[in-house]
Amino acid sequence: MRYELYYWPQIQGRGEFVRLALEEAGADYLDVARLPEKGGGGMRALLRFLEDRRVDRPAFAPPFLRAGSRIVGQTANILLFLGPRLRLAPRAEADRLWLHQLQLTVADLVEEVHGTHHPIAGSLYYDDQRPEAKRRAALFLEERLPKFLGYFERVLERNPRRGGWLVGARLTYADLSLFQVVEGLRYAFPRSLARVERKHPRLVELHDRLAARPNLAAYLASGRRIPFNQDGIFRHYPELEG
Amino acid sequence: MRYELYYWPQIQGRGEFVRLALEEAGADYLDVARLPEKGGGGMRALLRFLEDRRVDRPAFAPPFLRAGSRIVGQTANILLFLGPRLRLAPRAEADRLWLHQLQLTVADLVEEVHGTHHPIAGSLYYDDQRPEAKRRAALFLEERLPKFLGYFERVLERNPRRGGWLVGARLTYADLSLFQVVEGLRYAFPRSLARVERKHPRLVELHDRLAARPNLAAYLASGRRIPFNQDGIFRHYPELEG
Repeated sequence: MRYELYYWPQIQGRGEFVRLALEEAGADYLDVARLPEKGGGGMRALLRFLEDRRVDRPAFAPPFLRAGSRIVGQTANILLFLGPRLRLAPRAEADRLWLHQLQLTVADLVEEVHGTHHPIAGSLYYDDQRPEAKRRAALFLEERLPKFLGYFERVLERNPRRGGWLVGARLTYADLSLFQVVEGLRYAFPRSLARVERKHPRLVELHDRLAARPNLAAYLASGRRIPFNQDGIFRHYPELEG
Repeated sequence: MRYELYYWPQIQGRGEFVRLALEEAGADYLDVARLPEKGGGGMRALLRFLEDRRVDRPAFAPPFLRAGSRIVGQTANILLFLGPRLRLAPRAEADRLWLHQLQLTVADLVEEVHGTHHPIAGSLYYDDQRPEAKRRAALFLEERLPKFLGYFERVLERNPRRGGWLVGARLTYADLSLFQVVEGLRYAFPRSLARVERKHPRLVELHDRLAARPNLAAYLASGRRIPFNQDGIFRHYPELEG
């Protein structure tokens, strides 16, 4: 099965959580909007699906994944779909729901990170909402970031299998997403993260262990990994760290 | 199976999406935090689960649902779990993922509604973020509300089964959630809704059809339905309608 990922071509964004799963699994996939328009790729291909009136089940927004005749949208839902197919999810229904619950909590955190630089509207530039962003980011770093990271640290600690994974005794897509969260937060809020990480050794250990996996390391070193930048979800505005 | 729902006892909030599914299905359930503390209910029971160190798989926040020995958290994930058990989800995997995708899009809308009165932080009072709320709400009503409702109208329109349901030819939990969205938006932004609804006849028709279903009508008329108020997600601050 060759998967087709449709996501904005210039940012990691929410699409990156899907890319990391596909890359770690060594899956055959196309990152369609990053391919040349001449070959049927590019933004045109992405917009076509969003706007095509013949699509019965349209996505609200990217990312969405095409798998044969199916189109699956919503980041966490794409991973719910891909998990078993890429061997990045456990077998039992109870374990899969728990994994998905963690992924939705990652999504909540990611949404709050986005809000630190876009508290008023995604349609406005950052420069048009800087005072509000500063106020929101300060409270995010003080209250929410420790709450979220403390939660994931606790989940790692309480997993009875004690292998350092979030769910059960094997790598799942939520581990990869948590790796991305740590990467992104280090980029966006380096001073805060340095401080917070000291209290979350399991999270750091998970991050480092994943970074050393061959497929992931090869991906991170490749041109397929878009660098963090000031258009994505994780942005580095030094003034937001106070 | 007697389900136990754990959610804040004084608001509809996110728990209401679960309550509506349980009520429509006529399920046997306890709304634990609304029961007397003497009988093991109340806020104490809710907080116990959030704080108990012996819980292997803690929820990040309410709502969460207890079903026998299992605890399932995250609103959309609870509905993913309950859907087949309450006969509020289709059988095929592809249809279930599509349904879940719609539920996650409802969740995104709900999060944006919450942001209209809490753009800076959930931990601050509304009165401490009124100017920001006014700015955010204006853009939400202008840009995001029509985009979300237009999307759901389109999904209703394109469903090839043409029965007026979001997915397939039967009621699902996402229909119930969309009912709640219309109810909540009418309460929070009555003037904007009156205007927007004219362009979304399928959404209004779905709402009205659901309101007339016996189980749902009985629930809405009962004391179990907490009235909308100024502590929930949908709040009526007239100044936010501009």
